[in-house]
Amino acid sequence: MRTIEWNNGTITLIDQTLLPGEYKIIECKTVSSLCEAIVSLRIRGAPALGAAGGYGVALAAHTSAHTTTATTSTPTTAINTTSFERFMRDLHAAAETIKQTRPTAINLAWGVDRVIAAVRESGTSRIDEAREIALCEAVAIAEEDVQRNKRLSKHGAALFEDGDTVLTHCNAGRLACVDVGTAIGVIRAAVEAGKEISVVSCETRPLNQGSRITTWELMQDEIPVTLIADSAAGSMMREGLIDRVIVGADRITRDAVFNKIGTYTHSVLAKEHDIPFYVAAPISTFDPARLEHDVVIEERDPDELRRINGVMLAPAGAVVYNPAFDATPVENVTAVITEEGVMYPAQPDWWSRIPTS
Amino acid sequence: MRTIEWNNGTITLIDQTLLPGEYKIIECKTVSSLCEAIVSLRIRGAPALGAAGGYGVALAAHTSAHTTTATTSTPTTAINTTSFERFMRDLHAAAETIKQTRPTAINLAWGVDRVIAAVRESGTSRIDEAREIALCEAVAIAEEDVQRNKRLSKHGAALFEDGDTVLTHCNAGRLACVDVGTAIGVIRAAVEAGKEISVVSCETRPLNQGSRITTWELMQDEIPVTLIADSAAGSMMREGLIDRVIVGADRITRDAVFNKIGTYTHSVLAKEHDIPFYVAAPISTFDPARLEHDVVIEERDPDELRRINGVMLAPAGAVVYNPAFDATPVENVTAVITEEGVMYPAQPDWWSRIPTS
Repeated sequence: MRTIEWNNGTITLIDQTLLPGEYKIIECKTVSSLCEAIVSLRIRGAPALGAAGGYGVALAAHTSAHTTTATTSTPTTAINTTSFERFMRDLHAAAETIKQTRPTAINLAWGVDRVIAAVRESGTSRIDEAREIALCEAVAIAEEDVQRNKRLSKHGAALFEDGDTVLTHCNAGRLACVDVGTAIGVIRAAVEAGKEISVVSCETRPLNQGSRITTWELMQDEIPVTLIADSAAGSMMREGLIDRVIVGADRITRDAVFNKIGTYTHSVLAKEHDIPFYVAAPISTFDPARLEHDVVIEERDPDELRRINGVMLAPAGAVVYNPAFDATPVENVTAVITEEGVMYPAQPDWWSRIPTS
Repeated sequence: MRTIEWNNGTITLIDQTLLPGEYKIIECKTVSSLCEAIVSLRIRGAPALGAAGGYGVALAAHTSAHTTTATTSTPTTAINTTSFERFMRDLHAAAETIKQTRPTAINLAWGVDRVIAAVRESGTSRIDEAREIALCEAVAIAEEDVQRNKRLSKHGAALFEDGDTVLTHCNAGRLACVDVGTAIGVIRAAVEAGKEISVVSCETRPLNQGSRITTWELMQDEIPVTLIADSAAGSMMREGLIDRVIVGADRITRDAVFNKIGTYTHSVLAKEHDIPFYVAAPISTFDPARLEHDVVIEERDPDELRRINGVMLAPAGAVVYNPAFDATPVENVTAVITEEGVMYPAQPDWWSRIPTS
């Protein structure tokens, strides 16, 4: 199944907190159970959260207690109007609740707002119609993500050669998206095109998305994958064991790629060893309004480095610096792979070639 | 107390497997309890294992059931000779048992053999004398390590400036030695010389010696220390937050420094950002008989990356590449700090300046 789906009035999703120990599908029949899943990171990754936001509003519409069945042939009565208004109030309340689960996740808010806007802009005052419009828009968000990743993956796959060993960091796979993935999507597309590709997955401390999710995803697809400590990437490159590096991105400014902490280190190592370094990201990742120095990097809970599942890895009071992301200057990036084609930062006009999203 | 000590017929040591959760001193009254401590990594680190080997033979001498008290004025009888021979057989058996606990640990075997040789070369055939010689030699091994590290640390401290922030990887601290430490010894000596030094400790996956031991050691000494994920080193260097890097070494050939996996990556990052990269290691670490390509790098248990204290971090069957060490070409090393002074690999005759040990 996809990372998140709509099935007869229920949102189903893969519980990513249980991976790789357990593969469990959970069902969200209410907005509050969806919110719990988002807060607990059972679903994560920017594109997947966009779909979760959209489906969340569709679920709010589906579960609203206001069930008027007035038809257009019946003149709109005061009571029916009030019903619809109450229905819309439910939708807006749910929208706010969903957005507050992860207030800095731009895609989540974007997905929520897009579905609310679709209902409003339709001009309908019929609840059943509004429900249908909300669901259609949510499905469209999910479907667009899948199609976008497929186009992106095909563009990227052309850069790979038969027999390549490709290093990746964190999880830019299908579980971060609705399906297919970005960096891992490119690898999948290369394999589907008949190329023999091996993957080296960095464990990605401190939350181990590489060992927990990327390694699991690739094993599911039977694509050969080797798990390493993040710090083993350098010596593997020096020994000639890595042909290419590919990662996702959280944000791309004109001068830098923001991605999981450790990405910058891999880019320096790749440059040192003349290894192509690719970033796979949809056009929506580009941020034309900011430069690197305008972006504040989120610092996460120190306990992510102090303990793991209750086991102490460091003294309780240890001072920790735990940035979630780092910035890789675009000079270190060989190519940015998007759904609109491959962009090369070394070209002086590269930024002007990016379509405004 | 020191990492390992001799107290009235008992070897006492700090149980490093319990750190940082618990600080516990354990007592080894028998060779087999010492062997258990070595196998279980309650004591680790090349110099500390050298002392453990030496004290182990002293303990075997101390606990041998053969207790003849013959004096030199008594002519050696057949029975006394046999007693001494039995005693020596006990010693040799203990020596073999101790060495087999970690067969690739050169220092462990070296410490054992040195004490056995001291007894043999003394020419004594008296058990009480042999006991005393064994203990004296073991104490000398430990004391030499402490004095050597003090000299090394003083040489290294001169390279540091007041206000420096120094990044280190793994644990080349006092718990890897009998006391003082090498890389951390240099930091301690700089602090003792009145310089204000802050340390950045990389957690050092997969066994987390950085978070478990280095961070703990420095907090004990009240030297400011910040714990980071290994992969955060690159962005910290790019942001100008690191002034110097210092690490220990397991072996130094004419062309490369072998140390904990991740050291090479730090050296490339340091070069990229024009940050001095120091290696602190005693002369005994130099291996004039080999070049990089002659050294086989130990691969460790894949489960070190698959799980931690029973918690699954990766799918059970995940393929893992888990090298314990990497090789850093000496071109990336600004200076090697030894007890005999500071050596600069950039100097064409640097290798000839290293005293043969």
